[in-house]
Amino acid sequence: MLGTMLENVRNTCPLVHNITNYVTVNDCANILLACGGSPIMADDQAEAAEITSICGGLNINIGTLNSQTIPSMFLAGKQANALHHPVVLDPVGAGASKLRTETAWKLLEEIRFACIRGNISEIKTLASGSGTTKGVDADAADKVTEENLDDVVAFVKEFAGKTGAVIAITGAIDIVADSEKAYCIRNGHPMMSRITGTGCQLSAMTAAFLTANPTQPLEAAAAAVCAMGYAGEIAHARLSELDGNASYRNYIIDAICNMTPEQLEKGAKYEVR
Amino acid sequence: MLGTMLENVRNTCPLVHNITNYVTVNDCANILLACGGSPIMADDQAEAAEITSICGGLNINIGTLNSQTIPSMFLAGKQANALHHPVVLDPVGAGASKLRTETAWKLLEEIRFACIRGNISEIKTLASGSGTTKGVDADAADKVTEENLDDVVAFVKEFAGKTGAVIAITGAIDIVADSEKAYCIRNGHPMMSRITGTGCQLSAMTAAFLTANPTQPLEAAAAAVCAMGYAGEIAHARLSELDGNASYRNYIIDAICNMTPEQLEKGAKYEVR
Amino acid sequence: MLGTMLENVRNTCPLVHNITNYVTVNDCANILLACGGSPIMADDQAEAAEITSICGGLNINIGTLNSQTIPSMFLAGKQANALHHPVVLDPVGAGASKLRTETAWKLLEEIRFACIRGNISEIKTLASGSGTTKGVDADAADKVTEENLDDVVAFVKEFAGKTGAVIAITGAIDIVADSEKAYCIRNGHPMMSRITGTGCQLSAMTAAFLTANPTQPLEAAAAAVCAMGYAGEIAHARLSELDGNASYRNYIIDAICNMTPEQLEKGAKYEVR
Repeated sequence: MLGTMLENVRNTCPLVHNITNYVTVNDCANILLACGGSPIMADDQAEAAEITSICGGLNINIGTLNSQTIPSMFLAGKQANALHHPVVLDPVGAGASKLRTETAWKLLEEIRFACIRGNISEIKTLASGSGTTKGVDADAADKVTEENLDDVVAFVKEFAGKTGAVIAITGAIDIVADSEKAYCIRNGHPMMSRITGTGCQLSAMTAAFLTANPTQPLEAAAAAVCAMGYAGEIAHARLSELDGNASYRNYIIDAICNMTPEQLEKGAKYEVR
Repeated sequence: MLGTMLENVRNTCPLVHNITNYVTVNDCANILLACGGSPIMADDQAEAAEITSICGGLNINIGTLNSQTIPSMFLAGKQANALHHPVVLDPVGAGASKLRTETAWKLLEEIRFACIRGNISEIKTLASGSGTTKGVDADAADKVTEENLDDVVAFVKEFAGKTGAVIAITGAIDIVADSEKAYCIRNGHPMMSRITGTGCQLSAMTAAFLTANPTQPLEAAAAAVCAMGYAGEIAHARLSELDGNASYRNYIIDAICNMTPEQLEKGAKYEVR
Repeated sequence: MLGTMLENVRNTCPLVHNITNYVTVNDCANILLACGGSPIMADDQAEAAEITSICGGLNINIGTLNSQTIPSMFLAGKQANALHHPVVLDPVGAGASKLRTETAWKLLEEIRFACIRGNISEIKTLASGSGTTKGVDADAADKVTEENLDDVVAFVKEFAGKTGAVIAITGAIDIVADSEKAYCIRNGHPMMSRITGTGCQLSAMTAAFLTANPTQPLEAAAAAVCAMGYAGEIAHARLSELDGNASYRNYIIDAICNMTPEQLEKGAKYEVR
């Protein structure tokens, strides 16, 4: 079933508008192309809503938000809502500064998100203001473990119910949930945290999956998360002794590029709670 | 003859000022270095004209244009014109938003371009307002084929005559023309469209070729287009089973880095119409 | 001893705030992760100082400075000074425009830097206004050679004394000095100059080394410079016939990722003057 989600991306080539950070934007564009989507980036207020209109989905990432691009996020988000396009939020660093936290909260108030993807600390910050972040990484105290997994799943389902969005928390164990059903995903490799922007790339790709699968946002997001983690495994198996995080970054995007729906179906490691 | 164009880049190391988008800017810088040029990026109004002055050529790319950088494009363009430096325009996404279309038109009115490089839809938008674009990709309806090639060549020559610029339209078949002569180029590989920014990279490289070959803008632009397409072929031949679009991106820049004038001479596939 | 500097980065995972250019920012983030640090980028005035506060070190790079980010550099720099965090300055292109030169001078006046890293022309511009730059590369006339090395070392020590910063000049021979002691480093490979941003990457990495080794800024900076150059050697040895500057870029970051303190200790080639 998750393989079908990827197949639909490949068949429909969804055009995704990204208002995202300048750190990882190139990788976001290349992974969108790798999965079968098509990227466009436009963040000026004079065109943000118009570019959203010609796209099928929108990805808002606050990684290097600024006074010029924040208003564009709202303009694009509202336009996407008006057109019933899925909108993904990546609240990079929410909790790390007042600007990030308050912008993320305000986005949540004014925009209807189909999916919110972040690390556990960012999502906790959005939900309750209680999360802490170490820069753009999750705080160790917030870590999702086998021991606290049921509690976290309950928290995620509740937050999904409150926001109406699919919530995707990624880390050692990924949780993708709506208010009723949670995919607990065990794909991926620890070395992924030594690459900048695997989270940003996943958010961009999730927007493509949601756009191509409009009636199944939960399964679409779960498929994107499994695909990213599985690509991390395939890419890791390919590393030579001399390869490090830069080659690993390329190999992960390569793995998405070559992944077939059948492979994803077989490679996805999840349970439903 | 096209090999000589590359040789002149290698021998003179032209410094190219780029006002370009933040999505593909790193690849633009690396391909400029690969071909033998030297990049500088500066987009603040306080220094745009001054940086243009110390360079040999200018590349204006509207891929993520905004209210801060648009005035810099005009300042830099006018300064380059005053100094008789070649200026390249890459009208990324012209037709996709009013801001892009109108900015591109206004640039055409106020700046004299040595070369305009885009896909067929972007160039049609510039020429007549009739092109349509699917985001930053050409619309299928506009596609250049063997059947409509003569018509497109006639259109391109006319637009070249009207603007005084060499026009380079890239796609499955590339056309590089001034008002009298058109190179129809059949280098390249379809997989290049799965990498973000091959067009942006080509525009940056074209600026280096024009700067190093000031009296032969048509041949210089044709050489840059052949070099990019030929690099796409060399890089594709090198792909392993596990390689995808991320490795392909690196291999194309690598191929430009290693390409000799002799190889380009032999590898270029074109006819003149 | 230099190996210990790297070991301390790996053990403490310093979080480094980068206000840097959008050309090489992704490589800066990945090399910070490769060496064992953690990057965060934030350049809006509304959060610059606050993000600095949660970090251990700050890296200011003026490569694509603009009217929005320059005030953020001052806000972040002053906050870092107040908190006694090490601050690194990379004066990219100082001497190439009035904006760059004057911004760099003003930064020197108002911020206390732990280290300033640039090419010889940029550092000469900072010191005396007499340097010339060819865009973002050093001018040939300024080149450090075996013949003028003692003179340059004397100049660097004097400028280090005047600014209170460790000065790191990189080129064919690197010089890292405070007012009393200079490391003359002969690691590296000429092909590094065909990659965009090896200097930017080194500055980011230097900030991580200084943050992890607060009482030994000179040795920390020398270790970062040796590590970068040695990575350039390791990566060069790995190049296949088809590899060019794009693969080389990846291999250098890979080499940092895999470098052990012991390897750095053995691979560092320096003398003290």
